[in-house]
Amino acid sequence: MSDPTRAALDALNGTDVRLRHVCKARDATDQVGPRRFLHAGPPIELADIPGPMRGAIIAGLLLERQAGSAAEAEAIIDCGEVSISPCHDANAVGAMAGIITPNTPVVVAEATGGIRTFSPLNEGVGGAMRYGSYDEVTLARLRWLGDVLAPALDAALRRSDPLDLLALVAEGLRRGDDCHNRLVATSAALLVTLTPGLLHAPFGREDIAKVVSFIAGNGHFALPFAISAAKAVTLAAGGIPGSPIVTAMASNGREFGIRVSGLGDRWFTVPAPIGDPVLLEGATLDDVTPTMGDSMISETAGFGAFAMTAAPAIMSFVGGDTARAQEITRSMREVCAGTSGRFLIPAEDFRGTPLGIDVHRVRATGIEPVINNGLAHREPGRGRVGAGITPVPVEPFAAASRALEETAPERVGAADEPGRHA
Amino acid sequence: MSDPTRAALDALNGTDVRLRHVCKARDATDQVGPRRFLHAGPPIELADIPGPMRGAIIAGLLLERQAGSAAEAEAIIDCGEVSISPCHDANAVGAMAGIITPNTPVVVAEATGGIRTFSPLNEGVGGAMRYGSYDEVTLARLRWLGDVLAPALDAALRRSDPLDLLALVAEGLRRGDDCHNRLVATSAALLVTLTPGLLHAPFGREDIAKVVSFIAGNGHFALPFAISAAKAVTLAAGGIPGSPIVTAMASNGREFGIRVSGLGDRWFTVPAPIGDPVLLEGATLDDVTPTMGDSMISETAGFGAFAMTAAPAIMSFVGGDTARAQEITRSMREVCAGTSGRFLIPAEDFRGTPLGIDVHRVRATGIEPVINNGLAHREPGRGRVGAGITPVPVEPFAAASRALEETAPERVGAADEPGRHA
Repeated sequence: MSDPTRAALDALNGTDVRLRHVCKARDATDQVGPRRFLHAGPPIELADIPGPMRGAIIAGLLLERQAGSAAEAEAIIDCGEVSISPCHDANAVGAMAGIITPNTPVVVAEATGGIRTFSPLNEGVGGAMRYGSYDEVTLARLRWLGDVLAPALDAALRRSDPLDLLALVAEGLRRGDDCHNRLVATSAALLVTLTPGLLHAPFGREDIAKVVSFIAGNGHFALPFAISAAKAVTLAAGGIPGSPIVTAMASNGREFGIRVSGLGDRWFTVPAPIGDPVLLEGATLDDVTPTMGDSMISETAGFGAFAMTAAPAIMSFVGGDTARAQEITRSMREVCAGTSGRFLIPAEDFRGTPLGIDVHRVRATGIEPVINNGLAHREPGRGRVGAGITPVPVEPFAAASRALEETAPERVGAADEPGRHA
Repeated sequence: MSDPTRAALDALNGTDVRLRHVCKARDATDQVGPRRFLHAGPPIELADIPGPMRGAIIAGLLLERQAGSAAEAEAIIDCGEVSISPCHDANAVGAMAGIITPNTPVVVAEATGGIRTFSPLNEGVGGAMRYGSYDEVTLARLRWLGDVLAPALDAALRRSDPLDLLALVAEGLRRGDDCHNRLVATSAALLVTLTPGLLHAPFGREDIAKVVSFIAGNGHFALPFAISAAKAVTLAAGGIPGSPIVTAMASNGREFGIRVSGLGDRWFTVPAPIGDPVLLEGATLDDVTPTMGDSMISETAGFGAFAMTAAPAIMSFVGGDTARAQEITRSMREVCAGTSGRFLIPAEDFRGTPLGIDVHRVRATGIEPVINNGLAHREPGRGRVGAGITPVPVEPFAAASRALEETAPERVGAADEPGRHA
């Protein structure tokens, strides 16, 4: 294995990440403003955004009180009076549309060395900003999350040592979660950890009861805790000259893209795939926004679909069986340079998950990396329409592999010899 | 399959069990008194009880304020001034020593039809009455569990529909627990379910915080909830003339015994096995009390070791690997008459667990049923020394099979033709 490959793997494996804050995004970054939002995936022009991202921006303008109605918000968007930039450029990750505005409640993680990352709190099932909803229920819940739940959790955190977010994911894998699409046990574990502190938070008992009930009823609550940690370890693995390890996979609903450790902030993109999802009753593929969101940072960091054998219970939800779960994890070992030292799969006798997608290996094997993902309706405000296990195209990985060769000519031919990277 | 076999299976599969109360044992049964206790396993004379059961009786006498010191309690035992009878005769199940006294805090379950069962609250790790501890810490915790935690939980229960205990176990299996020796995810799920109600219980915030912290720190908290439900379904499967389905497996530390549906309350016993346990650092087999406790009602009801493929993470704790887990669940299918319709194993593509041990099948195949179990030190007050996956001897199953043949002569030879029971 080359030193740059090893160095990136060591960062993925060795970086510690702790939960630091639960707050509003304006307290976590200076990269947002009343009409300056973050979005999921590679860069995209406002004019090109897919329906659910437009819906989420409408929600954001309402949340920021820049518009008094959806129609006013639409006018602001249509006049180009809102600017958007990728979450990843702000060290953030947002599930689905990934729209982050100043008042979006977020989880803030901190890695060894002090790098901070953040991700919006999960709003639960039903209408949600991340799926493009902007109705009154969605807005009211976002405000409550920011004004009550976030400060209550933040107070709870301060009563104990900072929570080890990668240990939370590792324990989740022992409890049958992949920690990307199934997080019900991880969310329960998180609530159990936080509740004693919550009971001492400076909020009334009724507020605390509502906070606990909300978390108890939200099987995806742990997702931003997991993916903000994933963003932190992949950031630590970035910027290593010559390293072929993928540091981000993300999609904006139009384009899927990757970033690679040795290639800086450059995105390698391809039209976003739809895959073969399991759709809600009555929905068809025509209703679906192609793959969208930053949460595939899970797979980039060695969990999610890559840990499929740890989460057989999710297969029926995303379409498949145990044999397919085994095939997914097995084949991902072929495109990864290493094995996780902390995400251990009980059903594989505690073998680590495949870790560190190597663009040379993807190019050489032609194996498409696989992600677990939710799918949004293509129209604003229509919400979730399904979920799937989606192979992503090889092209951007191959293009990155070639780009690495161009920057380091002595590596030409490496992609044809995956053994060189083993 | 014979009708009596089918009838017992239907009862195991079709009986609904809800959580009814958390209270002191005196409010759950009239079969206990200040010097009249219940114990785990088949009947045993006071003079024959093993060390940890003696320790637990000392704890019980102190808890009931029948003795002011351990020495006084020992004198009461040595004079035979305390009477003991099996938990199973009172529709109860007790883990390990299983000593239940009037002030023992218990979980009360209720099955379709109104049958009630109960089991002591789990005291957590470290010194515990069920392992024979009787020190001040153990006693103080028992009193707190009975005076604060139990009524707080009981008040919490009354705020929602009665909790479906078999659904709790089924969900636990989806979260990597076997629900006998590993219950960490199930306990978290239980706490998440109960906490909103707890926050409205008529106790001060500090008490509620202590209750939540105690449960959050006890990965076996859900055990009595699971095994009181198991006792309820096995009771429902009992008393069917000619039925070869096992309705109880239990051990008192000297003898292991079973009860069978078609053979009433009769116990078929054999010296309790020790198996090949994983012992705590420094302990040897000479330190170990042979298998003890009623919690193997788990396996009798189709979970625990029988669901081993659902809980690969536990194998390292009890000794073994994934292949052994698969072999255990597979071989238990050979001794069981059926398959659970609600305990589904994700890793086996949601196939049900093996359900309903058929004594004829055990006799015909010679396959020893397997239980997960904890092990206590053989001396009173020394606590837990290990855990294991223990095969139990075939003899009592074979004896019961023969006894069934004697009561129903037309079935002679059945044991040699397992196909007749398929």
